[in-house]
Amino acid sequence: MSNRLFIFDTTLRDGEQVPGCQLNTVEKIEVAKHLEELGVDVIEAGFPVSSPGDYNSVMEISKAVTWPTICALTRAVENDIRVAADSLQYAKHKRIHTGIGTSDYHIRYKFNSTREEILERAVACVKYAKRFVEDVQFYAEDAGRTDNEYLARVVEAVIKAGATVVNIPDTTGYCLPRQFGDKIRYLMEHVDGIHRATIATHCHNDLGMATANTVAGIIDGARQAEVTINGIGERAGNTSLEEVAMIFKSHPELGIETNINTTKICGISRLVSSLMNMPVQPNKAIVGRNAFAHSSGIHQDGVLKNRESYEIINPKDVGVDENSIVLTARSGRAALKHRLHILGIELDKEALDKAYEAFLALADKKKEINDDDVLMLAGEHRKSTRRLKLDYLQVTSGVGVKSVASVGLDIAGEKFEACASGNGPVDAAISAIKIIIRRKMLVKEFLIQAINKGSNDVGKVHMTVEHDGTNYYGFSANTDIIAASAEAFIDAINKFVR
Amino acid sequence: MSNRLFIFDTTLRDGEQVPGCQLNTVEKIEVAKHLEELGVDVIEAGFPVSSPGDYNSVMEISKAVTWPTICALTRAVENDIRVAADSLQYAKHKRIHTGIGTSDYHIRYKFNSTREEILERAVACVKYAKRFVEDVQFYAEDAGRTDNEYLARVVEAVIKAGATVVNIPDTTGYCLPRQFGDKIRYLMEHVDGIHRATIATHCHNDLGMATANTVAGIIDGARQAEVTINGIGERAGNTSLEEVAMIFKSHPELGIETNINTTKICGISRLVSSLMNMPVQPNKAIVGRNAFAHSSGIHQDGVLKNRESYEIINPKDVGVDENSIVLTARSGRAALKHRLHILGIELDKEALDKAYEAFLALADKKKEINDDDVLMLAGEHRKSTRRLKLDYLQVTSGVGVKSVASVGLDIAGEKFEACASGNGPVDAAISAIKIIIRRKMLVKEFLIQAINKGSNDVGKVHMTVEHDGTNYYGFSANTDIIAASAEAFIDAINKFVR
Repeated sequence: MSNRLFIFDTTLRDGEQVPGCQLNTVEKIEVAKHLEELGVDVIEAGFPVSSPGDYNSVMEISKAVTWPTICALTRAVENDIRVAADSLQYAKHKRIHTGIGTSDYHIRYKFNSTREEILERAVACVKYAKRFVEDVQFYAEDAGRTDNEYLARVVEAVIKAGATVVNIPDTTGYCLPRQFGDKIRYLMEHVDGIHRATIATHCHNDLGMATANTVAGIIDGARQAEVTINGIGERAGNTSLEEVAMIFKSHPELGIETNINTTKICGISRLVSSLMNMPVQPNKAIVGRNAFAHSSGIHQDGVLKNRESYEIINPKDVGVDENSIVLTARSGRAALKHRLHILGIELDKEALDKAYEAFLALADKKKEINDDDVLMLAGEHRKSTRRLKLDYLQVTSGVGVKSVASVGLDIAGEKFEACASGNGPVDAAISAIKIIIRRKMLVKEFLIQAINKGSNDVGKVHMTVEHDGTNYYGFSANTDIIAASAEAFIDAINKFVR
Repeated sequence: MSNRLFIFDTTLRDGEQVPGCQLNTVEKIEVAKHLEELGVDVIEAGFPVSSPGDYNSVMEISKAVTWPTICALTRAVENDIRVAADSLQYAKHKRIHTGIGTSDYHIRYKFNSTREEILERAVACVKYAKRFVEDVQFYAEDAGRTDNEYLARVVEAVIKAGATVVNIPDTTGYCLPRQFGDKIRYLMEHVDGIHRATIATHCHNDLGMATANTVAGIIDGARQAEVTINGIGERAGNTSLEEVAMIFKSHPELGIETNINTTKICGISRLVSSLMNMPVQPNKAIVGRNAFAHSSGIHQDGVLKNRESYEIINPKDVGVDENSIVLTARSGRAALKHRLHILGIELDKEALDKAYEAFLALADKKKEINDDDVLMLAGEHRKSTRRLKLDYLQVTSGVGVKSVASVGLDIAGEKFEACASGNGPVDAAISAIKIIIRRKMLVKEFLIQAINKGSNDVGKVHMTVEHDGTNYYGFSANTDIIAASAEAFIDAINKFVR
C-alpha cells in the first residue's frame, strides 16, 4: 500500500454548515486559494443542490483553483447528482461525493427502509454519478455505528459499481480509536477489491476523539483523511487538518506522507477564524495562541536549556515566528535571567537573587510581568520610555448617532490632537489615532475577548498591525473595551516607532 | 483490577500556570468547591514552594473542601516537600505529589545527571515525603519519552519506597494512543508490586491526543486520570475532564466508572472559562457553545425524527437545557416545519413548500434566520412584537473621562428615558437600561466575540441574564460593540417581559 495520505478538506462544506460560519462566494474563493497553497489534495466546495449560493460557490471555486480536485456533495438522489455535476463543469479535476446512511438508526428512523433497499440505492447513486464524472466518492453515513459485516457488503458493492474513494464517517463522533481502527482493518481484510479504491476517514469530535480516530484509521489502512481548518464543523466539529498533518510530520516512524506545506498552517488558521468569526481557543493544539508559550518556571528552565525538553514541534514549522515566553508567578530564575539578557542587562548571582525575590512578590499581585516591570525589578528604568502615550480619549457612539472620537497623544513630549468619525466607536478611535500618526498601517487581526460575570469586568484586546511588511502585536486590558482597543493599537505602534 | 477510575483535577495547578489564567485565593476556593460538587476524587491545589500566594491557596482550599483529597506539587527537593506538607496541614485527606524527569532529554539537559542518580533521587524524595503524609504520588516527568525498561525500574523502586500513586505523564504531548497504552501495559506487566499502587495518566494535548492517550492508558490499566476543566493547561493544554467523563459514560461496555456528576459539567466549565478569561471555542467537544447545535438540513431532519440518529450525548446529561436548532441555508423542510410548529403555526404541504422556497432565498442572503423571519415567511407577523425597543442610545467614554450613557426605550408604545454612568461604556449603557426596567436582573454571562480584519467589522455579543431564577439568552451583532451589548441585553429582557 502507498504511504501517501490524501488530505480532503471540507472546511467549505462541513465547516461552513456551522451556524454563523456561512461565507459568501468571494470569501470562499479566498479560502480555497489558501487551501491550494497549503497543498490539500481535495477541496469539498459545497453541497450544490442545497441552495443557489452553494451551487454558485462550487462553480466559482472550480474556476479559481487549479491543482486540487474539487468535490461536490450530494445525497443519493439523482437530481442532487445532476446539479452537482453541473456545478463542477469548470473544474480541472472533479469529484462527486454521494452516499447514504448505513447504520440501523439511519435506515430505520431516517429512511424507514431496509438494509437491502439501502444497498441498492447506494449502488444506484454511484452508477448514476459515474455517468457524469470518473472520480466518484461514496459515503456510508454513520458508518461508525454501522455493523461491520453489512458495511463491508456496502463498500464492496459500491467499489464494484465504480466508486474510486469510499468514505467511512463516524458521523456522531461515537467511536473510540481502537474501534474505529478495527473497523477500517475489518474492511481492508474482508472487502473484495478494496485496493481498487481509497478508503477515507471522516471523524467528528463529539467525544474529543476525531483526530485520534482518524490517525487510527490511517494506521489501519485508510489513505484519505477528511478534515477542516481549526477542526470547525457541526456540533463539536471535525478532525483538525493541522493536527493530522503535524502528527504524521512528528512521527516519521509511521511512514505516512502528506503534501501539506505546514508553514502555511497558522496563516490559514487565522484567515478561517476571522472570516467565519469562529474564535480558536488559546489552548487549541498547533494553532491556539498559547500552543507554543511556556510560563511555568520548571518548564521555562527546561526550554532554555534545551528546546526539545518540552517542545516537540518547532513553531517555525507551522508558521509561528517565535517561542514566546511569558513571565508569571510560575517563572523560574532562569527565565528572569534570560529576559534580562534580552533586555541587555546582566546581573551577578546576588543581584539576580534579589531581583528574583522582588519578582515573585510582584508576580503574586500582577498576573503577567512585562518588560518594564522586569527593568524596574533590576533597578533600571527604560531610558527611552514609550514614545507614544495616550493623553486622553473621548468617544461618543450609540444607536441613531454617528460614532465620533477625539484623541490626544503625547509623542516624545510633544502634544497632538485629532478627531474622526467611524463605523462604530473602535473604528472612530483608531481612525483618529491614524490621523496623528500618518504612517501606513493595517489592522490585520483584532480580537476582543471578554467573558464576564456582570458588565463591568475587564475586557482584553489583542491586535496585529502591519507596517512596512512586518506584523506588530499590541495588547491591552481595560474595563472600557473601546479604551482597551485604542491602547492595544498604540501598544503595537510603539513597537515600530521606537 | 477495580473498575473505579479516580479523577484527579489539576485545573488549579497545571491549568493555573497558563499566562493570564492566574486566580486569587478567593477565586481558587470557588473553583475548588465546584470541583467537590462535581465529584472529583483529588484536587491538585497548587505548587506551594513556587510563591507565597500558592502556599496560601493550598492552605485555604484545604480548609474549604471536605471530601476530595487535596494534593500539593513539589520537585524532588526536600524544601519543596516540607513546604508542601506544611501547606496541607488543614486538609482532611492530603497527598504530596513529588517527582523528577526520567527521559534522557531531562536527565541529560535539565539535570546534567545519570539514570542511576535520578533513580536514587526519585526513591529519596518519595521516602522523604512519606515522613509527612501517608499518601504520596510520584511523577516520572516526560515518561512519554522515557525508555520503558528504565521507567519500569523507576516505578518499581518508588512503589517499594512507599508511593501510593505513580503518575506517567506525557509531558510534551508526543505519544500516540497505541504507544501510550502500550507503555502503561508494559508497566502493568513488568513492574513487581504494581498492584500496590494506582497508575495515573497525565497527558498533554500538543498533537490533539491528550484525551485519546488518557483513554488508551486507562483501558490498559491506569486507574487515575489527571485532567483539567475545559482542557486548559500550558501550551495546547491538558486532558479535558469533561471528555474523559463523557467517554466512559457513553461507552458502558468499557466497564469504567467515575464519581463525576456529569450534570454539573457545563456550569463549572463556564465558571472556569469566565474566572480565567479563557474562552472555550464554540466547537469544543461537550462544553462548546455549538456542541449540541444542529444546523444542516440533512442532520436536522434526522434529529427531529430520532435524536439518536445524530446525537450520542443527551445535552441534559452535561447540564445543557435544550438542543438548540438554528435555522440557516442548510436547514431542511422538516426543520422549518418544526420551528413553525413551535411558533404555533401549521401549514399544509403546499403552503410549506412555498414558505420553504422563500426561506431558501432569504437564507442565502441572511446567515441566520430568526423567529421573526420565520413568521414573516409563513405570511404572518408576530402579533405582539417585541415589547421593548431601543429608541436611541448615546454613550460617551474614554480615557480620562467617566463613561456615561443616555438611553431611550420604547415599551409597548410608551417612551422612557434614563441616563447612567458606569465602569466603562457597556456598564453605563446597561445601567441606564436597568434604571428604566426596574426589575431584578443579573448579567450572568457576557461574551464579546470580535475577530476582525480592520477595525470596522461586526462584533457579536452573547449575554445571559438571570431573572426570577431563570436564565434568558440575548444576542446581537453590530459594528458598534457597545450598541451590540445594549441590544443583546434588551433581547434577553424581551424574553421575560413578553
